[in-house]
Amino acid sequence: MALVVQKYGGSSVADASCIKRVAQRIVATKKAGNDVVVIVSAMGDTTDELLDLAQQVSPLPPGRELDMLLTSGERISMALLAMAIANLGQEARSFTGSQAGVITDSSHGRARIIDVTPGRIRGALDSGQVAIVAGFQGVSQDTKDITTLGRGGSDTTAVALAAALNADVCEIYTDVDGVFTADPRIVPTARKIPKISYDEMMEMAACGAKILHLRCVEYARRFGLPIHVRSSFSTKEGTWVVSDPDSEGTEMEQPIISGVAHDRSEAKITVVGVPDKVGEAATIFKTLADAEVNIDMIVQNVSAATTGRTDISFTLPTSDASVALTALKKIQERIGFESLLFDDQIGKVSLIGAGMRSHPGVTATFFAALADAGVNIEMISTSEIRISVIVGQDEVDTAVSAAHRAFDLDADQVEAVIYGGTGR
Amino acid sequence: MALVVQKYGGSSVADASCIKRVAQRIVATKKAGNDVVVIVSAMGDTTDELLDLAQQVSPLPPGRELDMLLTSGERISMALLAMAIANLGQEARSFTGSQAGVITDSSHGRARIIDVTPGRIRGALDSGQVAIVAGFQGVSQDTKDITTLGRGGSDTTAVALAAALNADVCEIYTDVDGVFTADPRIVPTARKIPKISYDEMMEMAACGAKILHLRCVEYARRFGLPIHVRSSFSTKEGTWVVSDPDSEGTEMEQPIISGVAHDRSEAKITVVGVPDKVGEAATIFKTLADAEVNIDMIVQNVSAATTGRTDISFTLPTSDASVALTALKKIQERIGFESLLFDDQIGKVSLIGAGMRSHPGVTATFFAALADAGVNIEMISTSEIRISVIVGQDEVDTAVSAAHRAFDLDADQVEAVIYGGTGR
Repeated sequence: MALVVQKYGGSSVADASCIKRVAQRIVATKKAGNDVVVIVSAMGDTTDELLDLAQQVSPLPPGRELDMLLTSGERISMALLAMAIANLGQEARSFTGSQAGVITDSSHGRARIIDVTPGRIRGALDSGQVAIVAGFQGVSQDTKDITTLGRGGSDTTAVALAAALNADVCEIYTDVDGVFTADPRIVPTARKIPKISYDEMMEMAACGAKILHLRCVEYARRFGLPIHVRSSFSTKEGTWVVSDPDSEGTEMEQPIISGVAHDRSEAKITVVGVPDKVGEAATIFKTLADAEVNIDMIVQNVSAATTGRTDISFTLPTSDASVALTALKKIQERIGFESLLFDDQIGKVSLIGAGMRSHPGVTATFFAALADAGVNIEMISTSEIRISVIVGQDEVDTAVSAAHRAFDLDADQVEAVIYGGTGR
Repeated sequence: MALVVQKYGGSSVADASCIKRVAQRIVATKKAGNDVVVIVSAMGDTTDELLDLAQQVSPLPPGRELDMLLTSGERISMALLAMAIANLGQEARSFTGSQAGVITDSSHGRARIIDVTPGRIRGALDSGQVAIVAGFQGVSQDTKDITTLGRGGSDTTAVALAAALNADVCEIYTDVDGVFTADPRIVPTARKIPKISYDEMMEMAACGAKILHLRCVEYARRFGLPIHVRSSFSTKEGTWVVSDPDSEGTEMEQPIISGVAHDRSEAKITVVGVPDKVGEAATIFKTLADAEVNIDMIVQNVSAATTGRTDISFTLPTSDASVALTALKKIQERIGFESLLFDDQIGKVSLIGAGMRSHPGVTATFFAALADAGVNIEMISTSEIRISVIVGQDEVDTAVSAAHRAFDLDADQVEAVIYGGTGR
């Protein structure tokens, strides 16, 4: 008998008939002899509708109240799911994040999990019940206020509870069949990846693959918890995220590249004419850190000997751009830089693969493929298992397809079916 | 400085603009120097929509999960209201029933309040904040599960919290200007009652006046808490419900009759041919009590000497009728009664007034008015301050108008404005 944690996103519980189908899958898992804990997101567009209501009463709603509002979404879906399961003759109990023991800090809207004390969940399992838990939410340790975990929150709830319960697997149900070698909407011949390492999956997530959030994979890696990403619309095996995909020796030789990720949500800022003195770059990035701006890639040009000045470019989420520009303008006089350039028409394309460690020619093949496709590279950044480039936003599709082809990732036929919708 | 508890029903917070108007009223009360605690119902039709969703996934949803589902309704309205207040520059905090310390028994869907421990509410008031509390809900003492209080639940929450906080007044906001001498939809010249006693208000509520629920008035009487029923659409004084309306001597001579209530939600069952032996009636009503059927009026005919048999008629909520009939069929053989008659085409019309204690002619005047209007009386029941009659359902309007006129309750002109919608 295994302990299985299942997470269903918003598109999997979008309406009553979806909820009833999910209930059948849960009951089947329970009847197969497993203990089952289910983490559920809000139904379909509920969160957007609630945010819209909030905007109607207040342009800048307090974080505490926004969290109180948004957590009603999971409350609805989890109660309905518990009812649908009970209607199939299987006892089920729904629990809020607070009742499930998801203890967080007090950062409303982006709380971090401090501790998980799932006493009531264990009690439900011991009584033979299926436990349904609200994703995305917790309760703050200090103020006992309701908090939300921010983006990818339900996946993180699932992994955190699975770890605390010492579950055998955490199944993340979504509307595609697993993790693909590229976005099938761009590359129709993209293949499903059967197994991938935590490290590669984290790089994929950080580089724009939206299927799993970085936090959730980090959490799973820390506890060595296997994640199984699969479709709630089929019973096919999906993608397993594990520590060492090759350990069982069932795989053929590992491919050099596991997948190609892309991200259109970043922008580029260039600080032009920074005096080439010790500490100027540090001041710039300290200022940005104080403004809570997340920086991704950084490039500093070689200083021109004649002027003693240099340019510093960096990328950041487009949503952080106005805060960053404002913060930088305030220190322009003190630093003495000449001007700021802003470009939000960029995209990031990344190759990810643990195999590239032992294949020195990857960068050359990647750049040649982009050059052949006529794509201009604006910035480059690398890690041990990743190469990312910034290109023009309208060249992202071309770049992804070219890279995918150059590393022989194409399947013989179209594999992916996309069912539409997104969870949280 | 007073401590004011305000309760707003679903029609008062039906959409964003309603919520913003309510927020302004709350802030005005706070700025006038009062501490303010607000109890709020779910927005407009939210509860019905949630019930509809529940029906779609399960014909008979478990009570625990139905309560979990329904309580999301107040969570939405209270968070939005807190945001709208904050947007006016006044700090506000929303609290679930559980957070507000509303402790109940474990009867899901109709929980009773056992205790109120409003520590967090006091804390919010001490910090100068407005406290917004979800009506209709609590947390069970034994299982720590979320419960709902059933019909009239938000009013009961308001009165219970007001009593626990030793508030100066509990204001119940609704979509009419107060308690009227009759339903203005039937009697357009009905008058607003400025003050009414707890006892009379309880009789009104028990006899079908929907403006306040019986439980809430009972609770207020026990703690001597003044209730002010008023419209959220105007600033006019409404109806004060207090222990002794005449104590201040500001009123003219008390009217004999305070108001005329009616109720179309009852049905009548007649047990025909009951053997006239000691204990048979007791067995019948013990059976009904065990089936949790609420009985209202009971009439037993004089036994016919020739047959040694009698008929017993009683009224009950129509919704309890099928349970009652089934329970009675089961004991037909044991009791030996002949048959059961069922009639749901009845209505109850009640005169309520503490003044009738000292005016012996009330019954005669009432019956004469009904006779003059051609209304036939089927059953009669009286208390010290109430006379109720059962009439044909299609004669209710005629009976109410005739009684209202007979006791000089008509105003010189139409006073009532009904704004539409109902709360919970």
